[in-house]
Amino acid sequence: MKDFFKVADLNQVLGHAAEFPVVETESVSLAETTGRILAQNILSDINIPGFTRSTMDGYAVCAVSTFGASEANPAYLTVKGAVEMGQAPDMTIGPGEAASIPTGGMLPDGADSVIMIEHTEKIDDTTIEIYKSVAPGGHVVEKGEDIKQGADVLSCGRQLRPQETGLLAALGKTSVNVFKKPKIAIISTGNEIISIDKKPEPGQIRDINSYSLSSLVETAGGQPVPYGIVTDNYDALFDACSTALKASDMLLISGGSSVGAHDYTVEVLSSLPDAGILAHGISISPGKPTILAVSQNKAVWGLPGHVVSAMVVFEMVVKPFIRRISGRSDFLKKGMPLPAILSRNISSAQGRMDYIRVRLTENGRDLLAEPILGKSGLINTMVQADGLIEIGTNTEGLNKGDKVNVIPL
Amino acid sequence: MKDFFKVADLNQVLGHAAEFPVVETESVSLAETTGRILAQNILSDINIPGFTRSTMDGYAVCAVSTFGASEANPAYLTVKGAVEMGQAPDMTIGPGEAASIPTGGMLPDGADSVIMIEHTEKIDDTTIEIYKSVAPGGHVVEKGEDIKQGADVLSCGRQLRPQETGLLAALGKTSVNVFKKPKIAIISTGNEIISIDKKPEPGQIRDINSYSLSSLVETAGGQPVPYGIVTDNYDALFDACSTALKASDMLLISGGSSVGAHDYTVEVLSSLPDAGILAHGISISPGKPTILAVSQNKAVWGLPGHVVSAMVVFEMVVKPFIRRISGRSDFLKKGMPLPAILSRNISSAQGRMDYIRVRLTENGRDLLAEPILGKSGLINTMVQADGLIEIGTNTEGLNKGDKVNVIPL
Repeated sequence: MKDFFKVADLNQVLGHAAEFPVVETESVSLAETTGRILAQNILSDINIPGFTRSTMDGYAVCAVSTFGASEANPAYLTVKGAVEMGQAPDMTIGPGEAASIPTGGMLPDGADSVIMIEHTEKIDDTTIEIYKSVAPGGHVVEKGEDIKQGADVLSCGRQLRPQETGLLAALGKTSVNVFKKPKIAIISTGNEIISIDKKPEPGQIRDINSYSLSSLVETAGGQPVPYGIVTDNYDALFDACSTALKASDMLLISGGSSVGAHDYTVEVLSSLPDAGILAHGISISPGKPTILAVSQNKAVWGLPGHVVSAMVVFEMVVKPFIRRISGRSDFLKKGMPLPAILSRNISSAQGRMDYIRVRLTENGRDLLAEPILGKSGLINTMVQADGLIEIGTNTEGLNKGDKVNVIPL
Repeated sequence: MKDFFKVADLNQVLGHAAEFPVVETESVSLAETTGRILAQNILSDINIPGFTRSTMDGYAVCAVSTFGASEANPAYLTVKGAVEMGQAPDMTIGPGEAASIPTGGMLPDGADSVIMIEHTEKIDDTTIEIYKSVAPGGHVVEKGEDIKQGADVLSCGRQLRPQETGLLAALGKTSVNVFKKPKIAIISTGNEIISIDKKPEPGQIRDINSYSLSSLVETAGGQPVPYGIVTDNYDALFDACSTALKASDMLLISGGSSVGAHDYTVEVLSSLPDAGILAHGISISPGKPTILAVSQNKAVWGLPGHVVSAMVVFEMVVKPFIRRISGRSDFLKKGMPLPAILSRNISSAQGRMDYIRVRLTENGRDLLAEPILGKSGLINTMVQADGLIEIGTNTEGLNKGDKVNVIPL
């Protein structure tokens, strides 16, 4: 049963992302969390810091003892002892008293601030002169000032950066629950495609897509599972898809999705268990002949065989679906816009979203986006590209000097 | 031998990066190259594609046979056969002749262009009508149009993105030489620091820096090797540094670099084999009490103990050094500037580079950068931050509405 070529727009297709279930979770040690997606909410069961700390080398004091102190009119304080790092001090500080304290040391009871060592002079073993006043709370971090006990600190679905890992360390989380990296199966189809270790005969080309798509899957947070090359044959493709889908959370098939003579992809995708075709064609360029199907609640993609088209569709369409099933709460969020000035006019067809490869240069003041022209089969145009610019559905083109937002590649 | 506290400016310190040697290389399989740094120049020994290919489903023709064809005045061509995918065609096409060809098929000898199937109609088994003319080269990718045989395609020192991996696949490189990931040893110092699996007593805090720095090293392309916590003691720190340096390419020590009572770091760093102190203090904030030393041609860093300071120094100062020894040719290149509008006034001291943590929001037209205020010991301010903005050495501050460039975190 072959569906008709029915083109969906990009937002319609992206609207399906939320329909796919999120993968399972696993517990990993804190050292393995970089870039992973948190699968639990994190509450703080402690105050951070757990005690009021000095942020300077100096003397812990009652601020009131320093009021009015200046070079011309120093105040004199009695030193009751020294705070040791990592230990609770054994003295109490009252007005007119001080204790020497290192950066990070715990304030003694009674002290509410720290006077920096640079603003003091030692008179004798138990007396200092101070030349400056300090306000209550000066040069200290209060108990719980970083994180209050009981606070919600991190939410499920958040990607962990180095600072989130640091925060989890502060909370004593030696391991955390994260979402598993989704397994993304990759199949290349086409009778002209040969393994990269073979020398192409006339008419043959090496399998680029298995490698570029695997690498894209990795950068998107997935685990690529390449299944190699399948010839343009219904049974071969059906068997390969069935096998791949059983062992993975999503399937990418590149090639065989145009209205060509050897187009078995739609037929195969329609015959998979619990199958449905969600989109057959997307109104983007390059990348129009893209198929999104579902089988047993897993997304199955028929991507164009042209390498640039396959990469652009991955970046703009497939990636949000991988983020979705990876558990990311912000799976549809676009990256931050990187504004640049277009270096020349470019035309665009209405009724579709156009993605133009650009090279970025700086002219000292602005970033310039220079379009890279070239057919969507040319991998070298992607190697030269620093990013993509999007030309909207209702725009006929852009002019030299226009401000554009670049999607980095 | 204790050096004086001599503050260097950021560019002076970055100028030392090129003095450190690059790590060794290793051969990895193509599937493992994502994000790695290429350690060889890549020349193409083939044309890509190796033959002239069709980019459309249609008929391979001599363009001259189509000139003047229109709906009103179609041209008639004799179909000599069908090009099969992956095979060299066995026919020759002359004027008035055509061969059906799928997308990606090899053009027969004599043909110079492809007429799209949409612009043709089949009359009988050997005759088609065509309604449109095509120029020579129309709807084909010429042999060598993507990459010419003998071309320099990738240079040593380049980071491999998915498209570079795709290009290497096209060239049949099943494995490539890349630089090893440099081993970056990490030591936390301080008598107040405890392992994260322990419950802090008053005066103690958990070891955040080992985890946040490890994660930063990973994102910078290095391999973190944490050596744990060392107490503030000359012999203990000397032994730990000596052991760590033997097994790694760079060493990060956090804590113990202020002019505090327990400052053994400079003494230890000065006593290591072939040691030299390159900078003792950097005119940036946060992060001033940073030490850069060299021992046996390896960089040894004394980073501030405050978590935010350590992260900012890593991002702005240490990272280019890791990129340098990782073999990246663009190790000093900054990321692309992400322009935003400042949401409030901020003051800054002259004579130093200030880094302000900011949260980014969009107001529909611009990106807004909202400063996050908070002491440099507070990890939570980094968790809330989306990026940093830099306030230059000679700037007293910035005003609400100023355009700023954000460094993403």
